[in-house]
Amino acid sequence: MSYFKNFMEANEAYVNLHGTAHLPLPPKTKVAIITCMDSRLHVAQALGLALGDAHILRNAGGRVTPDMIRSLTISQQLLGTREIVVLHHTDCGAKTFTNDKLKQQLKKDLGVDVSDYDFLPFKDLEKSVKEDIALLKESPLIPDDVLISGAIYDVDTGRMVEVK
Amino acid sequence: MSYFKNFMEANEAYVNLHGTAHLPLPPKTKVAIITCMDSRLHVAQALGLALGDAHILRNAGGRVTPDMIRSLTISQQLLGTREIVVLHHTDCGAKTFTNDKLKQQLKKDLGVDVSDYDFLPFKDLEKSVKEDIALLKESPLIPDDVLISGAIYDVDTGRMVEVK
Repeated sequence: MSYFKNFMEANEAYVNLHGTAHLPLPPKTKVAIITCMDSRLHVAQALGLALGDAHILRNAGGRVTPDMIRSLTISQQLLGTREIVVLHHTDCGAKTFTNDKLKQQLKKDLGVDVSDYDFLPFKDLEKSVKEDIALLKESPLIPDDVLISGAIYDVDTGRMVEVK
Repeated sequence: MSYFKNFMEANEAYVNLHGTAHLPLPPKTKVAIITCMDSRLHVAQALGLALGDAHILRNAGGRVTPDMIRSLTISQQLLGTREIVVLHHTDCGAKTFTNDKLKQQLKKDLGVDVSDYDFLPFKDLEKSVKEDIALLKESPLIPDDVLISGAIYDVDTGRMVEVK
């Protein structure tokens, strides 16, 4: 069974609400938000974003990786964003495993050897936010005058708390 | 001026609507959606997703990169997803540049030499969706029985059209 058909049906109803309007490609607030793929975090609603407001970048954990730096470079240098928010969250999947354990599982279940991979798990949420902010500040591709904030989202209450 | 404070204020109102509820970590539909960071695409609304329904992965272009494979591996092997939707969109920033042009700009404006980078631009939307589906099918980390669909989202109308 595939859910793709369900999404296409739901999209039909969305199209009726959306109407036709062309918003500009560069985000209005000039902000890029980097956060986790978690299903319990709906970024636009939780941060009050309207269509066209901000870039939203998401991977497992909301970690700053080379792909996120690639994306932020496009966001900033081509589309004019000047601010980044790093948003991690409670009950994150990245806290549930270790690299060693996951690599053993992949070898056993899929027959794949990924001994050189880092799946970027973490144990401490405040520390992971600070680590990722540090990676952004160290990157020569992120200019020094870009504003960077960090926060933790509580998936049970919907509340964001700033990491200072 | 920073927008972070505005997001924190909007989040206060969201918390009041959210209430307190614990949803499980594994996504209900067992789907991971990989799409672009574009500000004009609000994934949950456009696909009719409730909180807890699906993983949402986003980078510049919605491209299948090593970081997306890392994230999908965690999504599938640790959190039980069994389906992927690749969703690219009209008027994408990835269609507005070439690697050469962006690299020259980065050297000139930031003094950074990234000659070995691929920023993953594309020219043809159907082709880019098919390319990324092919990358997923080729990856040894994505099991053969995972369902994969592709679609293009129209940022002016909100409509998704399947890529077959």
